[in-house]
Amino acid sequence: MKPLFSRVAIVGVGLIGGSFALAGKEKGLVGEAVGFGRRRENLERAKRLGAIDRIETDLRKSVEGADLVVLATPVGTFESLMKEIATSLTNGSLVSDVGSVKGKLVERMERLTPKGSCFIGAHPIAGKEKSGVEAASSRLFVGARCILTPTSRTDRSGLKKISELWEGVGATVVEMDPLLHDRLLAAVSHLPHVLAYALMEALTQPPLAVEGLLGFSAGGLRDFTRIAASSPEMWRDIALLNDREVLSAIDAYRATLDRIREMVAKGDKEGLLKLFERAKKTREGMSAQSRRDVP
Amino acid sequence: MKPLFSRVAIVGVGLIGGSFALAGKEKGLVGEAVGFGRRRENLERAKRLGAIDRIETDLRKSVEGADLVVLATPVGTFESLMKEIATSLTNGSLVSDVGSVKGKLVERMERLTPKGSCFIGAHPIAGKEKSGVEAASSRLFVGARCILTPTSRTDRSGLKKISELWEGVGATVVEMDPLLHDRLLAAVSHLPHVLAYALMEALTQPPLAVEGLLGFSAGGLRDFTRIAASSPEMWRDIALLNDREVLSAIDAYRATLDRIREMVAKGDKEGLLKLFERAKKTREGMSAQSRRDVP
Repeated sequence: MKPLFSRVAIVGVGLIGGSFALAGKEKGLVGEAVGFGRRRENLERAKRLGAIDRIETDLRKSVEGADLVVLATPVGTFESLMKEIATSLTNGSLVSDVGSVKGKLVERMERLTPKGSCFIGAHPIAGKEKSGVEAASSRLFVGARCILTPTSRTDRSGLKKISELWEGVGATVVEMDPLLHDRLLAAVSHLPHVLAYALMEALTQPPLAVEGLLGFSAGGLRDFTRIAASSPEMWRDIALLNDREVLSAIDAYRATLDRIREMVAKGDKEGLLKLFERAKKTREGMSAQSRRDVP
Repeated sequence: MKPLFSRVAIVGVGLIGGSFALAGKEKGLVGEAVGFGRRRENLERAKRLGAIDRIETDLRKSVEGADLVVLATPVGTFESLMKEIATSLTNGSLVSDVGSVKGKLVERMERLTPKGSCFIGAHPIAGKEKSGVEAASSRLFVGARCILTPTSRTDRSGLKKISELWEGVGATVVEMDPLLHDRLLAAVSHLPHVLAYALMEALTQPPLAVEGLLGFSAGGLRDFTRIAASSPEMWRDIALLNDREVLSAIDAYRATLDRIREMVAKGDKEGLLKLFERAKKTREGMSAQSRRDVP
């Protein structure tokens, strides 16, 4: 079987980029995988793990001759990366990504993409709180959803190929408007990350910080804040590039928290019980509805 | 070896009460375990599982002849329970609990305790989001901390026995002022539960609720909100009985969330990165510091 893409450049070989390359090669969907990154040591690890075939430390050279370029760095770097690679892209090549922000960013990326190439936004809903290629797994996307965000400018045959690639590594592809993507993800992912970081910060600042405090934490707090161990740079970029939706999600959350605060202050036994019961029901329904993301 | 307590009445044979009885009997620290509860069916399950030796559906009778009574119901029921059992308590008996609120509640319980008996607050930092005796395990407290909150009115020999009992089932006993307990637990446990319930509620209300939203949730959200599947009644009681500390924890959290909101609104790249990095570091330190609570 001829691979879908003969040469794929992975820009940023971390958990997602590395898992994607591993899976694509394992399934014969990707011919050669070329890895570009900031840290030579990490690229060498990726090569040893079999995620990439070739290391390239020159960004432009890494994309030369590639029929697919996948941006797998923090989303805040996408625009400058595209500016740098634009003149080195092969005619007919696709540029895609694995980033958690689409919306305005897709629009900007499309404007920066040279004629003869096409940018197609992709976001596999998969991850671990661990980052780095050493945590990569070719099964990371099995059973996960991958959101593609085509626009009126998207090349349809390119979209079909990207779609086949993600299905090929085990994901279920869902197409979605870039702005709707950002709204959905702000709610189910960006907001929870912000809330977890906020809790860790609050627990180490007055008035909550007390010597030895965290020694009394139980499993609940540890699970709750697991995502606060995620990459700060990545999440800083996501929060800032999806600022509009993240701000409105924070505001909606605050309004709910204020309602609960009011109930506690008033001693509203019935109201609080009903709200907690509703929340529990939602949470229990979620397990059934959502797909597992980490095998 | 003679058991530490010849007859223990477990009032409320759920996850914690059931695990405590199982462990106490397994270690030979408890002679006979008598179970009282609201649902006969649950008590029969507890008996089949070996957590209790005898079912008693009359509250007063359940405590007669017991040298230790353990309240393992939601904390909001403690005062009325004590009022009801007061005249049936055996002279010299201890009344203890496994509740997540101490502070004012301990003071009130001490006032309600009849002469010849002594109330000693206990709180094993252990649990699962699952409730019910079917989730009970005799190893639930192994490696966990158990906070005891003696006061000037506490009988020292009784405290020593309760302490030995908890150490005997695998916990590490820590003595603490009841008010400090409430402050600490508000931060590491009560606040996170409120925040998780609030998130589930916010995601199902406008403006965040969107058809199919939760289908796009990933492992992060599921872990984050695991504790929102905890018992609504139990957590309602905790929030209301520890209202002062819970309100001040919510306020402290809101202040931190507002700071993050401000950074996102301003596009403060440096500030947000520093805060997320600090949070990540705290989170990573926590794993080392805290003890596991569920074997």
